[in-house]
Amino acid sequence: MSETWLPTLVTQTPQEGYELAVKLSRVAVKMTQPDGDVRAKIRADYEHDANALIAASSVVAVHFQTIAQANNHWKDR
Amino acid sequence: MSETWLPTLVTQTPQEGYELAVKLSRVAVKMTQPDGDVRAKIRADYEHDANALIAASSVVAVHFQTIAQANNHWKDR
Amino acid sequence: MSETWLPTLVTQTPQEGYELAVKLSRVAVKMTQPDGDVRAKIRADYEHDANALIAASSVVAVHFQTIAQANNHWKDR
Amino acid sequence: MSETWLPTLVTQTPQEGYELAVKLSRVAVKMTQPDGDVRAKIRADYEHDANALIAASSVVAVHFQTIAQANNHWKDR
Amino acid sequence: MSETWLPTLVTQTPQEGYELAVKLSRVAVKMTQPDGDVRAKIRADYEHDANALIAASSVVAVHFQTIAQANNHWKDR
Amino acid sequence: MSETWLPTLVTQTPQEGYELAVKLSRVAVKMTQPDGDVRAKIRADYEHDANALIAASSVVAVHFQTIAQANNHWKDR
Repeated sequence: MSETWLPTLVTQTPQEGYELAVKLSRVAVKMTQPDGDVRAKIRADYEHDANALIAASSVVAVHFQTIAQANNHWKDR
Repeated sequence: MSETWLPTLVTQTPQEGYELAVKLSRVAVKMTQPDGDVRAKIRADYEHDANALIAASSVVAVHFQTIAQANNHWKDR
Repeated sequence: MSETWLPTLVTQTPQEGYELAVKLSRVAVKMTQPDGDVRAKIRADYEHDANALIAASSVVAVHFQTIAQANNHWKDR
Repeated sequence: MSETWLPTLVTQTPQEGYELAVKLSRVAVKMTQPDGDVRAKIRADYEHDANALIAASSVVAVHFQTIAQANNHWKDR
Repeated sequence: MSETWLPTLVTQTPQEGYELAVKLSRVAVKMTQPDGDVRAKIRADYEHDANALIAASSVVAVHFQTIAQANNHWKDR
Repeated sequence: MSETWLPTLVTQTPQEGYELAVKLSRVAVKMTQPDGDVRAKIRADYEHDANALIAASSVVAVHFQTIAQANNHWKDR
């Protein structure tokens, strides 16, 4: 991953911040399991697993908190 | 999800903030599993699973912390 | 849940703050599983499950951190 | 639990703060499972379970962060 | 591990901060299981386990939050 | 544990802070399971368990965040 995929934590809206949080939660998985085919197979499993879906949502929550802090909670807008 | 579903983190009361936290915790699940029928089936399972219910509550807790920060903990009211 | 159950995060003491954190951790479970009979049955299970008890304590910890921030850690008292 | 068990988050040292964090992590378990005999039995199980011990340590970590914030990380001493 | 592997939390970009977070998440595993061969074997397992991949991503998220705070969320750039 | 094992959260470098975080994550386990022989046996198990290693890393991450805050993220150096 030598290209730039995270130039800034600043987003225009909370919603864009949330979408960035989803992205950040997935990058760590990609870095640990770079093989797209394997990830696709794993994904097919966990998309039907409540515990995995909730755990994934938990990672998004932590990243969203970080991004919200970076944007001063979008209060300046 | 191209429509606006998260225009702001500001809420009138802590209780509305909590309800928003519940919503945020569910959006990540929706983004990972967009099929409503599959989600309904998964939901039927985990609604009876103590560990899943507690894990879901944990995600709400993190989002609620973020939203509380965004609202200065509703101390200005 | 249309009645007001969370008017403020401010409490008189850290102990009341902790009790509020316990309450907040349970509300998310109630919102996901509104049926009291089902909850009572689930509760009977997880009250004997160390992992579930610890996970529940973890949710309380996050809410308590939020409430402590809202009360400036009760340092003004 | 009507007696006062948490009058303050302020402690003299980081070590006392850590010990308070351990206490806070256990109170939530007590509130969910008030029966001391049941807790003793559960404890006998999880004391030999690596995952439960690590999970318990995780709850302590969150409470310790809260207590450290309440004490300005003991930097004024 | 007597050599210096963490001289600073400051990074030039959010992306470098994220990569540092991944590194930090792995160091604790190394400290607990110093045997590289054992780690390689464990890694082969968990690279195909959705829950482990998500849990690893969760650790990255916490470290990334810390690093983002250390860099003032890269807002000064 | 009546001796002093945590006199301060201040460390000279981020790396020392990380090592302190590892220590803090282990103390809670010791307090819950004081028997060194039992801990050694448990450790032998979880050192080969990816999920336990990742969970342990997660506890370190939370403590490291606390210690980084206590040291102003080592920015004054």
